[in-house]
Amino acid sequence: METAIGIVAGILTSISMVPQLIKVIKEKDVDNLSPMMVAILLAGVSLWVVYGIILTDWPIILSNAFSVIVNTTLLICYFFFRNRQ
Amino acid sequence: METAIGIVAGILTSISMVPQLIKVIKEKDVDNLSPMMVAILLAGVSLWVVYGIILTDWPIILSNAFSVIVNTTLLICYFFFRNRQ
Repeated sequence: METAIGIVAGILTSISMVPQLIKVIKEKDVDNLSPMMVAILLAGVSLWVVYGIILTDWPIILSNAFSVIVNTTLLICYFFFRNRQ
Repeated sequence: METAIGIVAGILTSISMVPQLIKVIKEKDVDNLSPMMVAILLAGVSLWVVYGIILTDWPIILSNAFSVIVNTTLLICYFFFRNRQ
């Protein structure tokens, strides 16, 4: 039961990040992006992945691994697009 | 050991939300806020709190409870400030 709750929680929190990523990639607009905050969030979700691995907790591992990918992409976009404006 | 990792992870992911909340409250600017995404995130982190309670996992409970507070505040700000512009 709790695994299902964790998976649904992970899906919802993951979904909520996608529009911002799509907007940044489509509009190549990183004005509203704070690289410091994305880096802090990236560090946090990376630690959550470590935490999930230690506990062998798949909902935590998968949802935060997705977040690592999204936030890494956001950081790359930031450094890539900021010089274009 | 893993509790320490979970707590640090929770602190980092919580910190990363604060600047956006401060900016919204200070500037009363909700143009960049998607209420749908905040609502989805709010549903997700609420489920993570339930998940943490079931597992009696304090790092998950505390960090996501903080996120529930931040995102509830963001939603209230959205409906409060959007009519002012």
